[in-house]
Amino acid sequence: MTTVVALGGNALIQAGDRGTAAEQAGRLREAAASLAPLFDEPRVVITHGNGPQVGNELLRQERAADEVPPLPLYLAVAQTQAEIGALIETELGPVAGRPVACLLTHVVVAENDPAFGRPTKPIGPFYSAEQAGVLEHQRGWPLVEEPGRGWRRAVASPSPLEVVELEQVRALLDAGAVPIACGGGGIPVVRRDGRLHGVEAVIDKDRASALLAAALGAERLLILTDVPSVKRGFGTPAEEVVRELTAGEAEALAPELAEGSMRPKIEAAAAMARAGGEAIITALDRVEDALAGRAGTRVAD
Amino acid sequence: MTTVVALGGNALIQAGDRGTAAEQAGRLREAAASLAPLFDEPRVVITHGNGPQVGNELLRQERAADEVPPLPLYLAVAQTQAEIGALIETELGPVAGRPVACLLTHVVVAENDPAFGRPTKPIGPFYSAEQAGVLEHQRGWPLVEEPGRGWRRAVASPSPLEVVELEQVRALLDAGAVPIACGGGGIPVVRRDGRLHGVEAVIDKDRASALLAAALGAERLLILTDVPSVKRGFGTPAEEVVRELTAGEAEALAPELAEGSMRPKIEAAAAMARAGGEAIITALDRVEDALAGRAGTRVAD
Repeated sequence: MTTVVALGGNALIQAGDRGTAAEQAGRLREAAASLAPLFDEPRVVITHGNGPQVGNELLRQERAADEVPPLPLYLAVAQTQAEIGALIETELGPVAGRPVACLLTHVVVAENDPAFGRPTKPIGPFYSAEQAGVLEHQRGWPLVEEPGRGWRRAVASPSPLEVVELEQVRALLDAGAVPIACGGGGIPVVRRDGRLHGVEAVIDKDRASALLAAALGAERLLILTDVPSVKRGFGTPAEEVVRELTAGEAEALAPELAEGSMRPKIEAAAAMARAGGEAIITALDRVEDALAGRAGTRVAD
Repeated sequence: MTTVVALGGNALIQAGDRGTAAEQAGRLREAAASLAPLFDEPRVVITHGNGPQVGNELLRQERAADEVPPLPLYLAVAQTQAEIGALIETELGPVAGRPVACLLTHVVVAENDPAFGRPTKPIGPFYSAEQAGVLEHQRGWPLVEEPGRGWRRAVASPSPLEVVELEQVRALLDAGAVPIACGGGGIPVVRRDGRLHGVEAVIDKDRASALLAAALGAERLLILTDVPSVKRGFGTPAEEVVRELTAGEAEALAPELAEGSMRPKIEAAAAMARAGGEAIITALDRVEDALAGRAGTRVAD
């Protein structure tokens, strides 16, 4: 049994946190106890998001641009793989009982993906509507609203097509390590003239995780977030918890879920089910219950 | 035959460059042709420095500190492993003829290493003596002079003791990849209470490379820099090129070489020779000649 575990942003930064390295390490240390049951299995791969971190890094690049040259977004994504990978190694290593090792991972996207024309992926800090207006004007950012939480800078989020370092992830797994891979959805690249070229985007980490899981032949994809289950009719009188879905049912439910939040998770889960595996969406602190079938939303055919 | 190749800073940034990502990629592409003969061998590991890049990243962290929390130096080192690793993968992949994959690498140092009390490792941009005085006063930086080139910010550089991800580097090598490891000397950590803790330092990449080479059982360490050979009596009438040294001769020569420049290279080469391998110090564009015994300074017992 191979399991790919996609850690949500709340494994590192929660509401009210500033997102310092010490805070992120502390959040991961809290999460480690919940994640421990995962490591009863011998083959586990960890993936993670990078929304807050890549937004912060991009701000750093821009703020210091008069003194040192700013790096492009794809290298800021690379930087967050290292920042977060180092924190995960340090904090989950002691509970994993085996080496945890972070592999820099590139993910190929299509140069003509229509997502390049429509920024949807929120990154960095949250702003008020008023601040958002100022930033849009002063810095030229596109921004998107996350209902109830505020406005954030938005970047393009093309579809992941291929994990470049797939065989190296497999080699680490075969050698008994817990690879950390596809961080922040992977470093986005296109193939052109037999070479890789970085592009300005942030790939959705759940979709990249489903791609990785399917390519590895993993049986299970665990998508960890801040709610125990997916809900149908969220915020309406007919709201109900969803515990089991087929791939087709998940695909039918997707359009009613929030873009950039639960929608990519259910789409990733559906893709995993289509590839012959199962996907479970649940809360970080419900891992043990979810593995025992007592919590979460399970998608499988 | 396993070869560890330590790329010097000039593989990425040369005098007069601003150090943009495009410039660094261009320098690596120029270097790729010189490095191609290396890949005739099946087992090659790439290491690299990060002096300019980690200094730049630290500046970014500090300049944006009023808007997003700055990361500590050890995570800035991690970030440069990803920045440079991604560039190396993209530019050397096409000449390597096999996958090039960057593994985040931690290197253990001693908590009581005396180097923590004496910053010697130059990072970031070069400054004039006048600018250096201002920066020392305004930002509280220690600075060191690199004779003939200017002043740079300095950080502690403790001795590398252990490569944490050694077995994962070996697994990637065994799987037919070219691992990029120990970037920027590795992410500096100490072991305390069975955990890794990041520390404020930048490890010398040549010393870390020698440690990695010896631990892997590599037969050869190639240290690439901007001069074709080591010189004895540099800048004096008795100046002479050194072509062959034993470990003991290299250790005897070390004190007369520049700290933070040629001295750590000859010390690393001596350590490699003591471990039973051979080390060659040469220029990036003399790799083919050095492998054929026609260039470089070779240290072996």
